[in-house]
Amino acid sequence: MIPHWIIEKKRDGKELTADEINFFIKGYTRGEIPDYQAAAMAMAIYFQGMAQKEITILTEAMMKSGEVISTESLPSPSADKHSTGGVGDKISIILAPLVASCGVAVPMLSGRGLGITGGTLDKLESISGYRTNLSKKEFISIVKKCGCSITGQTKNMVPADRKLYALRDVTATVPSVPLIAASIMSKKLAEGAQSLVLDVKYGRGAFVKEKKNAHILARTMVQIGINMGRNMTAVLSNMDQPLGRTAGNALEVQESINCLKNNGPADVIQLTLTLSAHILLMAGIAKNTKGAIQMLKNNIKNGSALKHFQRMIELHHGDPRVIDNPALLPKAKYISPLLSPKTGWIETVDAEKIGRACIILGAGRRTKEDKINFATGVSEIRKIGEKVEKGKPLLLIHADNKNQINEAKKFLISAFTFSPEQVKPPPLISETIYGK
Amino acid sequence: MIPHWIIEKKRDGKELTADEINFFIKGYTRGEIPDYQAAAMAMAIYFQGMAQKEITILTEAMMKSGEVISTESLPSPSADKHSTGGVGDKISIILAPLVASCGVAVPMLSGRGLGITGGTLDKLESISGYRTNLSKKEFISIVKKCGCSITGQTKNMVPADRKLYALRDVTATVPSVPLIAASIMSKKLAEGAQSLVLDVKYGRGAFVKEKKNAHILARTMVQIGINMGRNMTAVLSNMDQPLGRTAGNALEVQESINCLKNNGPADVIQLTLTLSAHILLMAGIAKNTKGAIQMLKNNIKNGSALKHFQRMIELHHGDPRVIDNPALLPKAKYISPLLSPKTGWIETVDAEKIGRACIILGAGRRTKEDKINFATGVSEIRKIGEKVEKGKPLLLIHADNKNQINEAKKFLISAFTFSPEQVKPPPLISETIYGK
Repeated sequence: MIPHWIIEKKRDGKELTADEINFFIKGYTRGEIPDYQAAAMAMAIYFQGMAQKEITILTEAMMKSGEVISTESLPSPSADKHSTGGVGDKISIILAPLVASCGVAVPMLSGRGLGITGGTLDKLESISGYRTNLSKKEFISIVKKCGCSITGQTKNMVPADRKLYALRDVTATVPSVPLIAASIMSKKLAEGAQSLVLDVKYGRGAFVKEKKNAHILARTMVQIGINMGRNMTAVLSNMDQPLGRTAGNALEVQESINCLKNNGPADVIQLTLTLSAHILLMAGIAKNTKGAIQMLKNNIKNGSALKHFQRMIELHHGDPRVIDNPALLPKAKYISPLLSPKTGWIETVDAEKIGRACIILGAGRRTKEDKINFATGVSEIRKIGEKVEKGKPLLLIHADNKNQINEAKKFLISAFTFSPEQVKPPPLISETIYGK
Repeated sequence: MIPHWIIEKKRDGKELTADEINFFIKGYTRGEIPDYQAAAMAMAIYFQGMAQKEITILTEAMMKSGEVISTESLPSPSADKHSTGGVGDKISIILAPLVASCGVAVPMLSGRGLGITGGTLDKLESISGYRTNLSKKEFISIVKKCGCSITGQTKNMVPADRKLYALRDVTATVPSVPLIAASIMSKKLAEGAQSLVLDVKYGRGAFVKEKKNAHILARTMVQIGINMGRNMTAVLSNMDQPLGRTAGNALEVQESINCLKNNGPADVIQLTLTLSAHILLMAGIAKNTKGAIQMLKNNIKNGSALKHFQRMIELHHGDPRVIDNPALLPKAKYISPLLSPKTGWIETVDAEKIGRACIILGAGRRTKEDKINFATGVSEIRKIGEKVEKGKPLLLIHADNKNQINEAKKFLISAFTFSPEQVKPPPLISETIYGK
């Protein structure tokens, strides 16, 4: 097979065969097909798209480019959750131990933050000692011991995606549904979990802005999973405003702990329960949504979910005392309120601008090489539909540097708009896509 | 400037600025922008096209990526001709000395054949000793001495095009009008000739099959030349059947000599006179087409054009005696006729199939690394509209290997179709596009 004939075929809008896709991905992973041919192919896919069948084959080829994890040795059904990312999205940290406490094994491989999107690994690393570079063996062993583990991908997993993702980043071929779907799903399917719930975000703070595009992406990913024999559910959730009341690494860990202590913000709780319930249903642990929600709520109230979290931290060599002692999490030097310029109802809390402010404060990365400040960020964010008084705080800024406070404030103040009349908050979850 | 933002802009169909195009081409030529970004850009251009203004800027940027030739020191007006290539196209070899004999300097940089398309340099190299690797200085010096020189590009000319062309070849980004036009015109404009006539081919044996696409390409190139201050004319000419009665290197040199001796096939003569007349008009040497044609015909009849050719061969260290002694050109071991299976009028002589047969005979290249056999090819090709008798030759095959004769015959016999009724040959020239 000649690589540039395969590129030509896709350029002309024709459907590629399994042999062609496998040849291309194998060749690219091994370095036999050079970056420039992969770049041309990615751009051809950007313009011509791919049929669902091609996307599934592409995903499988990428998944099989490296090591995959087998969940066969786990004694219970396995499941995982993936979010396309947003500002203040700490759901994974709460969901993994919560679902584990209900008897579903959660082998979860997470990523780091980039741009305005936070990363679960970064957040967990704000817990002193927490290791995110487990071997495959350590990872499965922790899942067996406490029902869940959140770690990073090993170097040997999905090398095709790592190579292709880095290439797409510098060749303007990131926003392509087939490539996004194959990238996400190749990683998630390599974890081996039997059931997968997807949280596909749309809105100002999501990388997919339009709901209809989030729908297409969600449908595509659900179909890939089904084709690969997994149980799949996806929800479309709103990311116009940040999720919860905090954005920043240690601040979000604290908020997660609060949720597991039955003391979290309504939106975080709602989304966590919804996604978790889908998992319990797919795993056959609950018979219906009502039963699932009840079981989840019980395990928060009785402390079982929190215990699973604490045990997971311990097994990851993190300090388990953070659960009871918030002072053990990194703290910023300065806390400064952003005061409301108006009295009224909050109409907008632009998640993208909150995310950009977090980057200024050092809580997020501009480039992959940036170091993160675990302590900084924002907390006590007031949300859409809430009433504020002029001169009262819209949020608290946590910073280690006074100049950054002022710089961040410029972004933060423009993130808020106000209405003289009552405002209805947008629905958090707008659609559920079931695998079958 | 960030390269992938420029790719993104083109991907989204926006017009690039001069700064952006220059930055990209400079960076790519210097190796600061890698092949994979250039490949993504080429594919984005394939899909989104370019405005005429962008194409001109791209052409100029590519032209200026290396050494350019100055024709200022030439005492007479300078001109050149370019053909997009075909089978049996030996016009340059006849046109250069003919036009030079009328007082127009012709500094002509030509290329080699690839695939079914022959190359002027290969043909001239079939003359023993003929050098095609002149320095810039030698080149201009020969033009001054005999009015014309046909040589290859120096290594320092248009490096951006050389890099980009090789890349497009393996990334399925060859058939893009802006990229083809910029590639051709950057090379031609770097020669510095004041007037340029383009022979844009369409049909079975041309790389542009459809006349309407040839028209678009021709218009685009004429406009680039005009924007760059040159005199431009383009003709669209038919390449359904080979040009002349020979295809193959030494065979075409012999046919060219015959033309300069006023004894060539009608189609070669017609096209040579037409293109040459356009040059004389643009250069201000003739006042009207009739006068130009008369001058050209005179210089063939009085031997002046032939003398210029002989002098050019001599100055290139080639054997000038070939003009009078055809035995000095390479000869194939075997000459075998292809006999007509039918009596009737020839309806098709598929130029592409004739070209493929020449590759089998060693007269053309499959890949850039292939060596050429100067002696082989076909001659005495019967043309569309001519009457043939069953069992009489359709052409003569010149081969150095008996097996190749049989292999080539399979292609050759399928190149011909016949009609029981008289057939009108297709018009050779279908359109002329004037620069203003």
